[in-house]
Amino acid sequence: MNRIFFILILAGVPLSVAAALLHWPAVASFIIYCVTIIALASYMGRATESLAIVVGPRIGGLLNATFGNAVELIISIFALKAGLISVVLASLTGSVLGNLLLVGGLSFFIGGLKFKRQRFNVHDAQHNAGLMIFAIVVAFVFPEVFSMTLNDQESFTLSIWVSAIMIILYLAALYFKLVTHRGVYAYDEEKGENEEQETAEWTKSKSILVLGLATLAVAYISENLVHTFEEVGETLGWSEIFIGIIIVAIVGNAAEHASAVMMAYKNKVGVTVEIAVGSTLQIAMFVAPVLVLASVFFEKQMSLVFSMPELVSMVLAVFLTISITNDGDTNWFEGLTLLAAYMIMGVGFYLL
Amino acid sequence: MNRIFFILILAGVPLSVAAALLHWPAVASFIIYCVTIIALASYMGRATESLAIVVGPRIGGLLNATFGNAVELIISIFALKAGLISVVLASLTGSVLGNLLLVGGLSFFIGGLKFKRQRFNVHDAQHNAGLMIFAIVVAFVFPEVFSMTLNDQESFTLSIWVSAIMIILYLAALYFKLVTHRGVYAYDEEKGENEEQETAEWTKSKSILVLGLATLAVAYISENLVHTFEEVGETLGWSEIFIGIIIVAIVGNAAEHASAVMMAYKNKVGVTVEIAVGSTLQIAMFVAPVLVLASVFFEKQMSLVFSMPELVSMVLAVFLTISITNDGDTNWFEGLTLLAAYMIMGVGFYLL
Amino acid sequence: MNRIFFILILAGVPLSVAAALLHWPAVASFIIYCVTIIALASYMGRATESLAIVVGPRIGGLLNATFGNAVELIISIFALKAGLISVVLASLTGSVLGNLLLVGGLSFFIGGLKFKRQRFNVHDAQHNAGLMIFAIVVAFVFPEVFSMTLNDQESFTLSIWVSAIMIILYLAALYFKLVTHRGVYAYDEEKGENEEQETAEWTKSKSILVLGLATLAVAYISENLVHTFEEVGETLGWSEIFIGIIIVAIVGNAAEHASAVMMAYKNKVGVTVEIAVGSTLQIAMFVAPVLVLASVFFEKQMSLVFSMPELVSMVLAVFLTISITNDGDTNWFEGLTLLAAYMIMGVGFYLL
Repeated sequence: MNRIFFILILAGVPLSVAAALLHWPAVASFIIYCVTIIALASYMGRATESLAIVVGPRIGGLLNATFGNAVELIISIFALKAGLISVVLASLTGSVLGNLLLVGGLSFFIGGLKFKRQRFNVHDAQHNAGLMIFAIVVAFVFPEVFSMTLNDQESFTLSIWVSAIMIILYLAALYFKLVTHRGVYAYDEEKGENEEQETAEWTKSKSILVLGLATLAVAYISENLVHTFEEVGETLGWSEIFIGIIIVAIVGNAAEHASAVMMAYKNKVGVTVEIAVGSTLQIAMFVAPVLVLASVFFEKQMSLVFSMPELVSMVLAVFLTISITNDGDTNWFEGLTLLAAYMIMGVGFYLL
Repeated sequence: MNRIFFILILAGVPLSVAAALLHWPAVASFIIYCVTIIALASYMGRATESLAIVVGPRIGGLLNATFGNAVELIISIFALKAGLISVVLASLTGSVLGNLLLVGGLSFFIGGLKFKRQRFNVHDAQHNAGLMIFAIVVAFVFPEVFSMTLNDQESFTLSIWVSAIMIILYLAALYFKLVTHRGVYAYDEEKGENEEQETAEWTKSKSILVLGLATLAVAYISENLVHTFEEVGETLGWSEIFIGIIIVAIVGNAAEHASAVMMAYKNKVGVTVEIAVGSTLQIAMFVAPVLVLASVFFEKQMSLVFSMPELVSMVLAVFLTISITNDGDTNWFEGLTLLAAYMIMGVGFYLL
Repeated sequence: MNRIFFILILAGVPLSVAAALLHWPAVASFIIYCVTIIALASYMGRATESLAIVVGPRIGGLLNATFGNAVELIISIFALKAGLISVVLASLTGSVLGNLLLVGGLSFFIGGLKFKRQRFNVHDAQHNAGLMIFAIVVAFVFPEVFSMTLNDQESFTLSIWVSAIMIILYLAALYFKLVTHRGVYAYDEEKGENEEQETAEWTKSKSILVLGLATLAVAYISENLVHTFEEVGETLGWSEIFIGIIIVAIVGNAAEHASAVMMAYKNKVGVTVEIAVGSTLQIAMFVAPVLVLASVFFEKQMSLVFSMPELVSMVLAVFLTISITNDGDTNWFEGLTLLAAYMIMGVGFYLL
């Protein structure tokens, strides 16, 4: 698998440069960019993991928590710069739906075909449920409802406040998890294990080098990718919303998705939930607010105001996920339920 | 009780025919039809149960799952044929509210007056909670929100997709419950019991005969019943919505309701929950989508788009039921809470 | 602390009378009134508690349940009399948000700084969760949704019904808790303890005297307080909604808030939850419906129809609180999450 990604990068980066400079047709460029970004993202993921092991669990946890959705963040920054506010909001929505329903669903389903029941730590599930309710149900719904009464400037002010509070709470959540309550809620049998076993794939300097180069390449390609959206949409008859929700979200998270499903197949469904829900929280509590704050420096400012279908989809996905994971037990049917919800939403956004 | 139903059928069927042919006044006909259908429904229920025991648990489970709400389905089909879309949606709503709030509430209340605490399997409650969130909160809310942006044709396309996905998931749920995970989540003390003890009331051929004849009679009477709604509404000052939500829902489910309350009184509250929630899921995941798909063949097509009060009532009923049943423990006060919610909604729909 | 309140009353009552008679500037009067009411409220609280101990647990429980939010009720009655419907609804909202998010959050946060994990009875939490869903999610949301279709008179009729049903259910909840299921759901280790130890601070007659005098004083000052809102709002640039939601709610509940935080600091987080959630339920199921019914006798009638931001805030606060308390375990981070939600809502209502 790593070998394939290596080849894809070797071929994809030059092709991407060529596509950008020679103005190749939008759809072809779009595909080249997407594939290359997926391959680069897998290298960024490996570099981040190696680095996290080298620097120890605390700073490592922080690294994972900030670089885990770096690709998504980079693409979104360029989309923001290009003024494609609705694409950015759609891709945030798509990441949340993709992580909870598609990744969660696929993992539980495939894991469940092999194992009758898969269990994970209920305490983590409940902790995460509280955060998802806070981030998506409270912090996303609230500006929406108020924006109906507020004018645009007030709405943006509220978004800034909400974003600042979310980032602070996200940092506090890391501090809670990595420092004050490290291991407090772990299963007894898990305690102390799992931690020493990991060895870094790459050295510290190699990790930093790979991370730096891959990030640069992703940034370059993302800037070009963003400008193909309009034409691709017209050619294929997709709305920009659909591209944001389905395509960008899948490209930005492909590597992560694969490893989540892998873990469920190995009966480590706790890690799957950690990835799917953890990534959702990172998108909602870190990437989204950072984008709002970043938009201060761009021409068009982005309020944290999703469209009604986007908001409702995310809220429903959260409630469904919580009701399915709060017993700390999954099976193939629960996976199928999540996938069915994803499919319903996919059809809805396609028709929109 | 069975004797009474037998007499009611003997008298009711000829009276219904007379009422239909001689065009008796609407309110009188309406009452005759309703009473006769309730009596016939009890025979259909007994026939289905006998048949289910004879053919074994798997096919029996499937039988119960498809014929359990046959009366409701038949009445709705004729209402659909008569173009009374809003009555159909109202009666679906009424069935959901009736099963969760009225039947659940009455059972818990009456059972709780006799027993201080009544317990049931938490795993089933959580499994059902996930399905209710999927069916009612996701699959019903979603088309509603999207229909605000979509045109009628797109809205109906979305409804078709949602309906197809729901039926597939409903069949998967049966497969999960009856085949792959049969007994996996049962209480230890329950395992293996309860299954052999039941003996069929009627033979296979008698069951099929009764089921066939009763279904035909229900169909005939339903067709006539549906055409009385308008005049009954005008005479009594009830809206068609109110007739659908309160009357049709109660007529369609009366036999089931009685046995659910009976079971709670015998301290078998697990069976009560199974009936109330199971019937709700059947309505939402099977009857409703079948009606949407069936409407393709009728003049007026039915999108899965409820009115706002209907949708909100169902969602609130689901959340209330889940928050009350998820501890696997009921008492009279929890029953009263559900009844209070039913009463509030009844007043609301009456005023509408 | 009691000493300070005594001095505040000695100084505050004459000052309040002076401010009212001599028409002092609004902001100064407003501050004097607020401080005096807070001090008087602490005396009312102590008198109610003494009385509750003297008369025994059953009538005592009833006393606490009716006088616990007496100050809030009195201020609201005078606001209602002055026709300030929107201030009344705002202060009900503010009490719910304040109890759940501010008091709950502050208590869990401060308690959590001292103790790593604080636990309380899960059964109580689940019982309360059901009631909060009933009271705030069902009984508050329902009239709102229906009021969109109903005219004002029908809307008020529905509010009357909802209010009557809520009060009956509230009384039933007391009967359940104090009579039929007293101690049924208690922790084993708690059973029988805690009850005999308490001794009344004051005698029965002194309690009644203090309660009577303090209530009179609060009533007198409240009437004047209510009339400063408009001018204070204009002077400080606050909307009446903001005054209702933040100020009136805090003034009305200050004494209770302090003791809830105190209890968490003493690791009695179960009492904290009892105060915060119990007070919320009292506001929603007793104070709010009593105000609706009382408004029949005033010039302007009050329907139970909150503004959309108010309603959504309360519903979100309930979902967040339930998802955080349903594991019977709190820590500083969960407290911080509640506080973050309170802050977001505070900013939103300030901008409104």
